[in-house]
Amino acid sequence: MRRNPERRRALIDGAIEVLAREGARGLTFRAVDKEAAVPPGTASNYFANRDDLFTQVGGRIYERLLPDEATMARSREGTQDQNRYAELMHELVDRVSAFNTGYLALLELRLEATRRPELRAVLTERIREDIDANIAHHAASGLPGDKTSVLLLYLALNWLIVERLTLPDIFTEQEIHDLVDEAVRRSLGA
Amino acid sequence: MRRNPERRRALIDGAIEVLAREGARGLTFRAVDKEAAVPPGTASNYFANRDDLFTQVGGRIYERLLPDEATMARSREGTQDQNRYAELMHELVDRVSAFNTGYLALLELRLEATRRPELRAVLTERIREDIDANIAHHAASGLPGDKTSVLLLYLALNWLIVERLTLPDIFTEQEIHDLVDEAVRRSLGA
Repeated sequence: MRRNPERRRALIDGAIEVLAREGARGLTFRAVDKEAAVPPGTASNYFANRDDLFTQVGGRIYERLLPDEATMARSREGTQDQNRYAELMHELVDRVSAFNTGYLALLELRLEATRRPELRAVLTERIREDIDANIAHHAASGLPGDKTSVLLLYLALNWLIVERLTLPDIFTEQEIHDLVDEAVRRSLGA
Repeated sequence: MRRNPERRRALIDGAIEVLAREGARGLTFRAVDKEAAVPPGTASNYFANRDDLFTQVGGRIYERLLPDEATMARSREGTQDQNRYAELMHELVDRVSAFNTGYLALLELRLEATRRPELRAVLTERIREDIDANIAHHAASGLPGDKTSVLLLYLALNWLIVERLTLPDIFTEQEIHDLVDEAVRRSLGA
């Protein structure tokens, strides 16, 4: 197995684009080599098999979706009230939507997970960790609401992003904005 | 174009199973013929092309997801309060989850819609109609809450079903039940 980490990352990033564009069935070593503009046969030196490629793609998407340090630092500034919560959720929705191929690839992975038990296990663990981290982050933040608020926002905002990325004419940008505000407000369950 | 409506329906129902199992790329006329156990070449006599097949599948899934008359009649009985609302939403989540291949096929169609403008237009129209019908039904029902409650429940429950069908170990059945209750309660925005 080859070990150049930059090359590996470039291959996985290429795989994300292939997944979003062609779907899970289109994700072949050959397509990844082509997308990453590397010699044919390169991907097969970096991944044991397609299962391995799928699971590494899952981890990488989450890595790229995480906020950077500056964003995290900014999120801790200012009054931690409902308006601040809404602001953070707008930022989150926009950040995730901006990496649209990553989010679409993640949906492809979820569907593929119904066919691949190993991928299902890896995604379950990764997403459960992410949810728990969100709950812990919220509890430490001083933001209003409770664990249920975090879970309800997780649910509503994920589908809002699905809607925006797959059928962008269902809701206008203004409706999306208002729905985020209301999702925050009502999830607090005053 | 052949016109036997039962045969057409059987082919489309077969296509739903193929989509859920194999993904959008696996949805070929040949696979549909095989799934519906009809002679090779049958599907190509019923659908002009794959675009046509994809759009007809979308319509059929929504047809099958609609509650039947008995369910609709029952939904209008009893006190239309928050508990009743929660009961109806539990029924909805269970009904949709029970047609799991239909829901997974719908996710495949949404992803395919990012690649097929015609499918995107058909799904957008169908889903917008469905959302508007939900809003109108709610307004006429006497249930608590407003249009925003309906939209927030639409968002949260859709993702809850995605979670349940693609990564069923993220939330336990009890957690799902409690999340539906809380989604209803908080979406009302008292």
